[in-house]
Amino acid sequence: MLYFGSDYQEGGCEAVMRALSETNLEHVGGYGDDRFCEEAKEKIKRICACPSAQIAFLIGGTQTNMIAIDSLLKPYEGVIAAQTAHISLHEAGAIEATGHKVIELSGKDGKLSADTVRECLQGYFADPFHEHIVRPGMVYVTYPTEYGTLYTKKELSDIKAVCAEYGIPLYLDGARLGYGLAAPECDLTLPDIARICDAFYIGGNKVGALIGEALVFTKNNMPDHFLPLIKRRGALCAKGRVLGVQFSALMDVYYDIAAHALRMAKIIKDELLKKGYELRVQSPTNQIFPIVTREFMESLDGKVVYDFWEWLPDGRAVIRFATNWATAEEDVRALCDIL
Amino acid sequence: MLYFGSDYQEGGCEAVMRALSETNLEHVGGYGDDRFCEEAKEKIKRICACPSAQIAFLIGGTQTNMIAIDSLLKPYEGVIAAQTAHISLHEAGAIEATGHKVIELSGKDGKLSADTVRECLQGYFADPFHEHIVRPGMVYVTYPTEYGTLYTKKELSDIKAVCAEYGIPLYLDGARLGYGLAAPECDLTLPDIARICDAFYIGGNKVGALIGEALVFTKNNMPDHFLPLIKRRGALCAKGRVLGVQFSALMDVYYDIAAHALRMAKIIKDELLKKGYELRVQSPTNQIFPIVTREFMESLDGKVVYDFWEWLPDGRAVIRFATNWATAEEDVRALCDIL
Amino acid sequence: MLYFGSDYQEGGCEAVMRALSETNLEHVGGYGDDRFCEEAKEKIKRICACPSAQIAFLIGGTQTNMIAIDSLLKPYEGVIAAQTAHISLHEAGAIEATGHKVIELSGKDGKLSADTVRECLQGYFADPFHEHIVRPGMVYVTYPTEYGTLYTKKELSDIKAVCAEYGIPLYLDGARLGYGLAAPECDLTLPDIARICDAFYIGGNKVGALIGEALVFTKNNMPDHFLPLIKRRGALCAKGRVLGVQFSALMDVYYDIAAHALRMAKIIKDELLKKGYELRVQSPTNQIFPIVTREFMESLDGKVVYDFWEWLPDGRAVIRFATNWATAEEDVRALCDIL
Amino acid sequence: MLYFGSDYQEGGCEAVMRALSETNLEHVGGYGDDRFCEEAKEKIKRICACPSAQIAFLIGGTQTNMIAIDSLLKPYEGVIAAQTAHISLHEAGAIEATGHKVIELSGKDGKLSADTVRECLQGYFADPFHEHIVRPGMVYVTYPTEYGTLYTKKELSDIKAVCAEYGIPLYLDGARLGYGLAAPECDLTLPDIARICDAFYIGGNKVGALIGEALVFTKNNMPDHFLPLIKRRGALCAKGRVLGVQFSALMDVYYDIAAHALRMAKIIKDELLKKGYELRVQSPTNQIFPIVTREFMESLDGKVVYDFWEWLPDGRAVIRFATNWATAEEDVRALCDIL
Repeated sequence: MLYFGSDYQEGGCEAVMRALSETNLEHVGGYGDDRFCEEAKEKIKRICACPSAQIAFLIGGTQTNMIAIDSLLKPYEGVIAAQTAHISLHEAGAIEATGHKVIELSGKDGKLSADTVRECLQGYFADPFHEHIVRPGMVYVTYPTEYGTLYTKKELSDIKAVCAEYGIPLYLDGARLGYGLAAPECDLTLPDIARICDAFYIGGNKVGALIGEALVFTKNNMPDHFLPLIKRRGALCAKGRVLGVQFSALMDVYYDIAAHALRMAKIIKDELLKKGYELRVQSPTNQIFPIVTREFMESLDGKVVYDFWEWLPDGRAVIRFATNWATAEEDVRALCDIL
Repeated sequence: MLYFGSDYQEGGCEAVMRALSETNLEHVGGYGDDRFCEEAKEKIKRICACPSAQIAFLIGGTQTNMIAIDSLLKPYEGVIAAQTAHISLHEAGAIEATGHKVIELSGKDGKLSADTVRECLQGYFADPFHEHIVRPGMVYVTYPTEYGTLYTKKELSDIKAVCAEYGIPLYLDGARLGYGLAAPECDLTLPDIARICDAFYIGGNKVGALIGEALVFTKNNMPDHFLPLIKRRGALCAKGRVLGVQFSALMDVYYDIAAHALRMAKIIKDELLKKGYELRVQSPTNQIFPIVTREFMESLDGKVVYDFWEWLPDGRAVIRFATNWATAEEDVRALCDIL
Repeated sequence: MLYFGSDYQEGGCEAVMRALSETNLEHVGGYGDDRFCEEAKEKIKRICACPSAQIAFLIGGTQTNMIAIDSLLKPYEGVIAAQTAHISLHEAGAIEATGHKVIELSGKDGKLSADTVRECLQGYFADPFHEHIVRPGMVYVTYPTEYGTLYTKKELSDIKAVCAEYGIPLYLDGARLGYGLAAPECDLTLPDIARICDAFYIGGNKVGALIGEALVFTKNNMPDHFLPLIKRRGALCAKGRVLGVQFSALMDVYYDIAAHALRMAKIIKDELLKKGYELRVQSPTNQIFPIVTREFMESLDGKVVYDFWEWLPDGRAVIRFATNWATAEEDVRALCDIL
Repeated sequence: MLYFGSDYQEGGCEAVMRALSETNLEHVGGYGDDRFCEEAKEKIKRICACPSAQIAFLIGGTQTNMIAIDSLLKPYEGVIAAQTAHISLHEAGAIEATGHKVIELSGKDGKLSADTVRECLQGYFADPFHEHIVRPGMVYVTYPTEYGTLYTKKELSDIKAVCAEYGIPLYLDGARLGYGLAAPECDLTLPDIARICDAFYIGGNKVGALIGEALVFTKNNMPDHFLPLIKRRGALCAKGRVLGVQFSALMDVYYDIAAHALRMAKIIKDELLKKGYELRVQSPTNQIFPIVTREFMESLDGKVVYDFWEWLPDGRAVIRFATNWATAEEDVRALCDIL
């Protein structure tokens, strides 16, 4: 069986697993107050070129989004996101469970535009009864998006400019951040992201960590008393070391392992295009969305694990192949043979 | 430096670390739908002698308590707990953050009594205006307690009898469960606990896991749609495998590694008593609470990591030494020399 | 000045004010346990032809929606509503503040269609990962809608049929219910609404009450322990009598006072059409939405209080005139002279 | 039947009812933006001698407490209150429903002491792990208390001094404020309360209003965007006028009607003492708590409505007689005859 169903089907990358093993019996304090977390934070500040960054390590993406959004918003505010965003669709209402509305705007291929965001904010303030409406209090983007697409530096900067105009933060969900940054088409660096965004997270679960995400506040804006804010959501790890050790190791190899996944994805994409498949979206990252017939899709069963995406009106299907740091080139070649 | 400050200062026990390493590149599905989680669940059912048990793997104790309590209570209900309970004091309001009151009753050495619980429930129902009062909807106990003490089988059964009389569940927080079960003074088995309690969790973080807890519902009473209930609290792991692999390995060694910790604690306790120290509480488990002078306490600094507990009216201090699966006998001997 | 800005700019209708005055010094119990509430409930059951109806009196529309929706949904469920619905737009996030998502579907002139609702539910269940999505747990409609339009009996029954197919309740927000029921174009009766919907509220604030709404559960489905559910939201009136007295009086005159408002609205609408104004929507109820020029709009200032609704692309404006039980015919005639 | 069961068994006092009637058909704006609310606010500022006071009118006591406390606290904070406080016992968990813990301290006859409050705050900050504990973020007192007792000016000032030392607000629940202020034993004035407390509410429901309470922020500390904060809790009245009209009228007669209630209570208390009854507590306000035999208590049934309070260990009962603005002297005399 060939596994291209998602990018979180294996454990941790070699560097991470080795670090966990090597540091295992070292005695350290709890709740993130340990030398590993310190080391990891220092490395993150350095590769973000953001010496004043404030960092918290958390377990998963939904948890990180929930906590970042809830702690940056006022109780009467909501978060602007694309209708296709993870927080809009696939977090089982975690944002609403903290009392905030997701203000869903239409986007294109997973991306919001600065114009759409401005229109929403203008409309809010133009309404004489806007105090009866949920106030847009921040903007959420994913990078790469759920469709594998990337904002350009200009696009992201334009959204940030609107945020700045209205005095609200821009937050970037980087669940697959590495697979964006390592793409040749990417014109953003991690320092760019740290500069442009008010907060973002560096995805670990899908990009080499055994488990964990690193939430980064870039403007000296980590909410006060962030420890109890995390703990009262059940998100504070007594054994914070587990996350610190991983991110310290992961930061040394983050681009390299992501670049591997992108090379593997490129081989598949090239093969698909060579063989005449249409792609649902031009994704430059580790997710590829070919349009296939139902018969072809069924022919993969038992041979290839893939992710079904959606039916098209013409009866064909969009499916997704995802690569990651663990994808073996021989599996990619075998997939190409099948295509 | 000798480390007796807490029972979560190291990584995972050998069996757990080996299992994580060996299974690392195996491809499996996400969100706990994998063969490791299945295996771990089967082992837990077996050692609990509870074939119908329903199990969910979570990351930490506060998270597990928060989710178990919130999902078993109705919105208008609260949870009965001792004033000294973890959920009353040390979870930063996580229970209240889900909208439920912790109904705090006085206890003794960390333990609730059946009489106190009955009195609370009788008082509630006797009040003609009880619909204006938070309804006691479940009982929470810790085992071992925060003071290292243990309920006897009779004490726990008596509390359960009161719960049954009023139709409310009994939930047991087993953050240190292994260190209770492996104690010679313990007259309860895991099957007893599974039979008596409606839900409980098997502590991993403090008893050999790298990270994680196993929440067990014993009466076919896992709340419906538990997956979204977990996910909307940010507590569903995409990489559920990480928890499944650990608990599958941990269940094979759980008693053994806990018994080691207790042997180490016994050596310390015997030494303390031999040398004439008073103990704050007779704890038969892995936490020992000697009463010491301020001078003695200060003399430990730089040599022994311990936990300060509280000042006594006479100016002496209660401190805590905790052992765990990773405690080395040579460190224990060195501590004894210092005492 | 002529007042047509909204339908809640005066106090209570004569019958309500007289009843409050006449019963003022009678001594009764608190929290709705009084003879006035009983009387009012009996009258509501009778005019709804629903002897088993369960009724609670609340203060305002947002409060009533919030409590009805939160208490009928499971924690992991959301409520389907039109994008233009009051709960989607104008309740400051009150539904989300109780932890539930408003699942916004597009509608027409304020109305949802059965097809749109079915598509949403089908899509949810067809998704293999639907447990990660907020589950649609009920449908919310307004009657009349925010645009003054009405569902036909067939339209409402069709939506109910979809709800029944999926086992979820249909809830109707009747903030202006009287102004719908009394419209000649209305083919629904109060017994029809009670039969079709699982819950609804009879609007008092805008239709003759000094203050208050009556929430009706029609299928023996009032959530258990509704009193504490209300009280923990701060919505239980110690002096429940105030609502009971009003609704008992109001039920005797509800249709009549609503019919007056509709006659007044008809005069204005006829005049507008006669004079060649376009209407934004064909509203058969007490709200009229003429399309006017900016100059005309400004010419009203200082003479007529109206509500600005929205700008059209061609630079003209939609404004709203609302009548109610208190609208004086001479004011209507004066408005017609101005038009 | 003689009615002494509670102080909210009748409608509104004469001045309030007349004002509602006289202003009933005046057209005004919604949501508290009307001349009546303005008038009422001006009067409150004046009688509080607090020109900068910020005032919101709400419906009930639990709602007011819930909103004041939730909006003044940070998410990770709790509110200190006596174990016998209304928010601790009789609000069905409304405070916890907003995510905050009620930190219950023991008191005496319903009153907290400055020492107890200081001890709680000192203990919190002395704990090296206090970030894992709910942070005490404000102090809640009732005036008069649930036992009808009063804080002296010194007692209240001392509590305020502790609050000031720790930088947290003092909030006073004045559900029965009038009955405290009008007591001869009271050494506090409304200006004193406005000066000492950071927020408080002037009780209307029990002291002459038909319905409503007036929440007063005295230090320019009304939380920003208070309108949406109220609305998202379902507590914003579309017809804010109803509250404004009442409080404008009520402020003119507040002391006088309260003084009447106290005169009536004094007659009963004197009679009780004359006839040798013991009182559970020396209440100088409108609630009287005699200790009676079961037989006596039963002899009242059918003749007098009273409130049962609690059983004493010796088998006797504490009952409560409450007077209010509406209590008729002839009823008081009739009660005295029965005693």
